[in-house]
Amino acid sequence: MPTALAFDVFGTVVDWRSSVIRELTEFGVEHGISRDWAAFADEWRGGYAPAMDRVRRGELPWTRIDDLHRMALVEMLAAAGVEVADNDVNHLNRAWHRLDPWPDSVEGLTRLKRRFVITTLSNGNVSLLTNMAKRAGLPWDCVISAELFRHYKPDAEAYLGCADLLGVQPAQLMLVAAHPNDLRAARANGLMTAYVARPREHGPDQQPDRVDDGEFDFTATDFLDLADRLGA
Amino acid sequence: MPTALAFDVFGTVVDWRSSVIRELTEFGVEHGISRDWAAFADEWRGGYAPAMDRVRRGELPWTRIDDLHRMALVEMLAAAGVEVADNDVNHLNRAWHRLDPWPDSVEGLTRLKRRFVITTLSNGNVSLLTNMAKRAGLPWDCVISAELFRHYKPDAEAYLGCADLLGVQPAQLMLVAAHPNDLRAARANGLMTAYVARPREHGPDQQPDRVDDGEFDFTATDFLDLADRLGA
Repeated sequence: MPTALAFDVFGTVVDWRSSVIRELTEFGVEHGISRDWAAFADEWRGGYAPAMDRVRRGELPWTRIDDLHRMALVEMLAAAGVEVADNDVNHLNRAWHRLDPWPDSVEGLTRLKRRFVITTLSNGNVSLLTNMAKRAGLPWDCVISAELFRHYKPDAEAYLGCADLLGVQPAQLMLVAAHPNDLRAARANGLMTAYVARPREHGPDQQPDRVDDGEFDFTATDFLDLADRLGA
Repeated sequence: MPTALAFDVFGTVVDWRSSVIRELTEFGVEHGISRDWAAFADEWRGGYAPAMDRVRRGELPWTRIDDLHRMALVEMLAAAGVEVADNDVNHLNRAWHRLDPWPDSVEGLTRLKRRFVITTLSNGNVSLLTNMAKRAGLPWDCVISAELFRHYKPDAEAYLGCADLLGVQPAQLMLVAAHPNDLRAARANGLMTAYVARPREHGPDQQPDRVDDGEFDFTATDFLDLADRLGA
């Protein structure tokens, strides 16, 4: 059994897509603008991995997610012909601080916290993760972010840095994530791994992940199932 | 009013002296050793500022508090003629992860958390602060440590780095501490300041701090009084 659990956040703990669509819809109502907000949310999220990869390759200096999100948002609003004040752009950009958890997240984390140290290990910046947890009631023992290492997952520094900050060996730390690629990188760096399926992260038409039997140490349908499997 | 409160921890949130004496006494009973444990605790703590200053001056590379504590402990045990296994030294060294809060700390923090983002800003390392909070029920929104900046307080990097991670301006962040020197350094870097008296931190014979009227933004007798003054 691990000593500590590190959780991927976007998609694993929180339902970013429904939450961002909700925020965009509110934004549209407030400003009298009608667009396909689901497509807008998917495009916004779609720019995230390529932007982080530019940071990972050194084409951009270290840039936190709030700023990567804002750069994409400004371009997308311009392309959609939407003109609003800077303050409104800032508020909308912080939609990512106001994401709602999946229905099982708070109860599952609360149970897991009794037995394990539980932390975030997210590419989201510290203030984003902190504000999100405060609003949603996510009971983290601490908030660890790629920002602390200036290396985005799947860079090794993020996984190993998390173990180092927690004062545990990589093999005593288990990454919990809904994304096989994140888990494979964690495993390559010596961490334990738990895959939790989130089949609606990308909406109703999502293709299932391809995960081999026994590829990860644990596989669970949600955080309550994970707590059961870990005896928490 | 500030947006976020950053708390010094040793002495401000937790009663390190009584807790370390308790741990040393338990250690003595377990190993059949009798010493003046109060004096031992004071000497252990007394080595802390000079050791950090060696790091701050660059005479030592970055070294986390757990390791500074252990270096001092090994020397002190040798000087006291105490020989125990490495595992026992490690357990005793982690006494600093098991410090008890002052009687008002948990209730006061719980009230303050409703209105403000509350974080640690301590020279203690992340795992120490995380384990302490978990054991004592300290309800931090996040855990920020000098370790994240590789600069101990009162270096500017610690105060400014904390504001940066929280995504606030220094003037929106208030340091809460029982130590005027810490507060003065925070103020010099643009933070707001709240002094909370902890007249028994160093035991019954402690001399009162010298604090000028109006020197800090707030002065409180404990965290409940601070919550009253901040309307939380």
